[in-house]
Amino acid sequence: MNYEIILNVLGNLLRFLGLVMIIPLLVAYYYGDSLLPFAVAIAITGAMGILLSHRYGAEGDWKIREGFAIVAFGWFTAALFGSIPFMLDGISPLNALFESMSGFTTTGATILQDIESHSRSILFWRSMTQWIGGMGIIMLFIAILPKLGVAGRQLFRAETPGPTEDKIKPRIRGTARILWTVYVVISIIQTVLLMIAGMDLYDAVTHTFTTMSTGGFSPYSQGIAVFNNPFIEVIIVVFMFIAGANFALHYRTLYTDRYSLVNDNEFKFYTVIILAATSLLTFSLWNDMGENIFTSFRYALFQVVSITTTTGYATTDFNMWTDSARIVLLAVMFIGGCAGSTAGGIKVVRFLLLLKYSQNALFKSIHPKAVKPIKFNNKAVPEDVMQAIVSFVVIYIMIFAVSTALLSLMGMELISSITASIATLGNIGPGFNAVGPLSNFDVVPDLGKLLLIANMWIGRLEVFTVIVMLTPEFWKR
Amino acid sequence: MNYEIILNVLGNLLRFLGLVMIIPLLVAYYYGDSLLPFAVAIAITGAMGILLSHRYGAEGDWKIREGFAIVAFGWFTAALFGSIPFMLDGISPLNALFESMSGFTTTGATILQDIESHSRSILFWRSMTQWIGGMGIIMLFIAILPKLGVAGRQLFRAETPGPTEDKIKPRIRGTARILWTVYVVISIIQTVLLMIAGMDLYDAVTHTFTTMSTGGFSPYSQGIAVFNNPFIEVIIVVFMFIAGANFALHYRTLYTDRYSLVNDNEFKFYTVIILAATSLLTFSLWNDMGENIFTSFRYALFQVVSITTTTGYATTDFNMWTDSARIVLLAVMFIGGCAGSTAGGIKVVRFLLLLKYSQNALFKSIHPKAVKPIKFNNKAVPEDVMQAIVSFVVIYIMIFAVSTALLSLMGMELISSITASIATLGNIGPGFNAVGPLSNFDVVPDLGKLLLIANMWIGRLEVFTVIVMLTPEFWKR
Repeated sequence: MNYEIILNVLGNLLRFLGLVMIIPLLVAYYYGDSLLPFAVAIAITGAMGILLSHRYGAEGDWKIREGFAIVAFGWFTAALFGSIPFMLDGISPLNALFESMSGFTTTGATILQDIESHSRSILFWRSMTQWIGGMGIIMLFIAILPKLGVAGRQLFRAETPGPTEDKIKPRIRGTARILWTVYVVISIIQTVLLMIAGMDLYDAVTHTFTTMSTGGFSPYSQGIAVFNNPFIEVIIVVFMFIAGANFALHYRTLYTDRYSLVNDNEFKFYTVIILAATSLLTFSLWNDMGENIFTSFRYALFQVVSITTTTGYATTDFNMWTDSARIVLLAVMFIGGCAGSTAGGIKVVRFLLLLKYSQNALFKSIHPKAVKPIKFNNKAVPEDVMQAIVSFVVIYIMIFAVSTALLSLMGMELISSITASIATLGNIGPGFNAVGPLSNFDVVPDLGKLLLIANMWIGRLEVFTVIVMLTPEFWKR
Repeated sequence: MNYEIILNVLGNLLRFLGLVMIIPLLVAYYYGDSLLPFAVAIAITGAMGILLSHRYGAEGDWKIREGFAIVAFGWFTAALFGSIPFMLDGISPLNALFESMSGFTTTGATILQDIESHSRSILFWRSMTQWIGGMGIIMLFIAILPKLGVAGRQLFRAETPGPTEDKIKPRIRGTARILWTVYVVISIIQTVLLMIAGMDLYDAVTHTFTTMSTGGFSPYSQGIAVFNNPFIEVIIVVFMFIAGANFALHYRTLYTDRYSLVNDNEFKFYTVIILAATSLLTFSLWNDMGENIFTSFRYALFQVVSITTTTGYATTDFNMWTDSARIVLLAVMFIGGCAGSTAGGIKVVRFLLLLKYSQNALFKSIHPKAVKPIKFNNKAVPEDVMQAIVSFVVIYIMIFAVSTALLSLMGMELISSITASIATLGNIGPGFNAVGPLSNFDVVPDLGKLLLIANMWIGRLEVFTVIVMLTPEFWKR
């Protein structure tokens, strides 16, 4: 393991993060907020960055393991230093780290008791961490910094959600630039549309940050319900849906083949899941809660898209719904969005391939000698990819189960433990009961907060990148 | 598909079942109960059996698909005709089928409101269905009837729990006979021990029937708590533990190699799971509920063994425990016993192999070019076996999720829906809340009872045997 180069890259990452924090500093200046939180954070982050990158050289080889370590520690470091403004705003260190990790990982679980009591610039930074984390801080770093070259591919793989890599350009830097550009362009479109629908610039930008990243932080305790504006809801639903789909396909749809999205097996299945869950939820809300059918549909569509894409926005307190409605949301919590999107969760493609794999096994149980490959988008899926998918799901479910058990042992009630675990591991945000959309995660005991911080981190980096570091092989010479 | 032969074998199975019912008829005679329920059941079952086996010939080939159909429909038919005595005892047809399916599949979920109000012979039959179902009605049929020959192997595979076949003898009939003999011998030992501990013959036999089959029906509403006898509890714990392990290994341990059990990877892991869960539960009961440490251990060990082996006996109302204690039981509900045992659930070996598969994938993520097979008991596990295991778990979890969602949509509360689904699919018996150990499944709506009957049937036959019949390939010529 080449520790020097890891520390060198982490140093460069911190210098970069220090520069990024100039934006909330300017926002603070504009709104007349205290400049101290950001000025101090920039100073500490920048100084640490310069120290590390100068102290340690970038010489020598680096391989797979260094790639995993850089991405895993890079994200943790970003969350850690990104929490400095929150701490200087009076939030306890543990809570600040929770909020910052929840931001960067686009989870959207909050420990803030009274969101509106915090300054506009602090809430701006809180939204902005999600937008940076959404497309990936390491990918942004690859796109902008010139140095990484070939080695960047390893970082890209370790950070990008989904079991397979989609090569848009032969060079990884080209791919990273394209994806970030598409992300920025769609974000600008959403901001403009939200302003047309009636939001001011601040609300439009912060809500774009947290929609496009499928993050779900809102500067208002009531979330999207505060606007009670159907146009805004429609815009947010559409852009959550876009953000939960594969950005490489968005690029292709815009520039090379306009049927890229609609011909994609995963995108079709993603759409089917959302339509099916929305229908079921509409029926349940209409049948159990006595809402009229249109209101039921409006709530159902918004909430299904918000939870499936792991955004976590709410237009109503869905925690008050009946269990027959809540079970629909619980089910989509386990699925998540598409590979290559900004969404979290297990991902639609993994479910689709597990279903195909099982169907194939059923076929083989009747025809034991038949050879029939599993196909995705008309290509055979290699055995190694299937193994990685299966293992991802096994480890994911195990972490979920252990996390639920630990929270229960800490005294949390069962439904709260279950949903707090899946909502953090899947980077969704709110759960049910004690961690419902109008509650906050400050009710979780301190040890539980540490556990949920780990869940968010592990979930955003799709399990392997973090978990592989727990194996003895990783540290072998 | 050779329908004639399927109907022929089902006919023979019914004739056999009619003969078996002579035993509860004798019990009814002994206790002076009404002979009607069993006399009528024997007449109907026997007549239908003779009709089918004479009407349809046993000529022609039969292959994999006929094997699946015979086992799946055979079990359903047994549950259906086995429910006749319950119906004649005044139980509604749906409830009678539920109770009978719960018996044969060794689930142990009951719809009886007041167990003691039923006659001793009816409760004897209820326990006896579990004992027959435990080692497998088809396997008993193979062991006793001379006709099946080579074709029996297919039936054996479709009925026996576990991903791989353990060939004790080259001929399937020899294997079936040995397994049933071991089962009978251990059952006799348990009966004698229970009588020494203070039970009368009736209690000793019925409790042996439901311990050795990991079924959990008891002729008393209070279950094992009614005895409040530590010796009886110890005997039952030991024999549940034995019944939850592989009977082929019991045979080998007794007759060929005394280290067979302790050298087996699955048995070791099974023991570790039980010890770990017992420790955790002891701690939780001691810490949360203020019980003393010895009482906590006594309750914890009994309940962990009872639930892990999918027996479902209770020595206390574990539904009243805190969520931190209940989560331990919920976790082991998903695991179940060993392959080749009478236990249900996903099975320990499947968990073990999924863990090894995932560990292997983590290794490969660092060393992409390394070739490293997955080993179980020092043998490499073939890719096909892994695929069958993964697919089993995927389909199992899907059925669990759909069942939970459907029960919720029928208006059942979430925890009750979750645990009713896993308790029937895993052939465990009681769940939590509305379906707790001192409650009964009569609270489930009628449509829900049908669903749970399907769960028990699918779960006992390890998913594939039933689910494969839902694929179009199965019915193709």
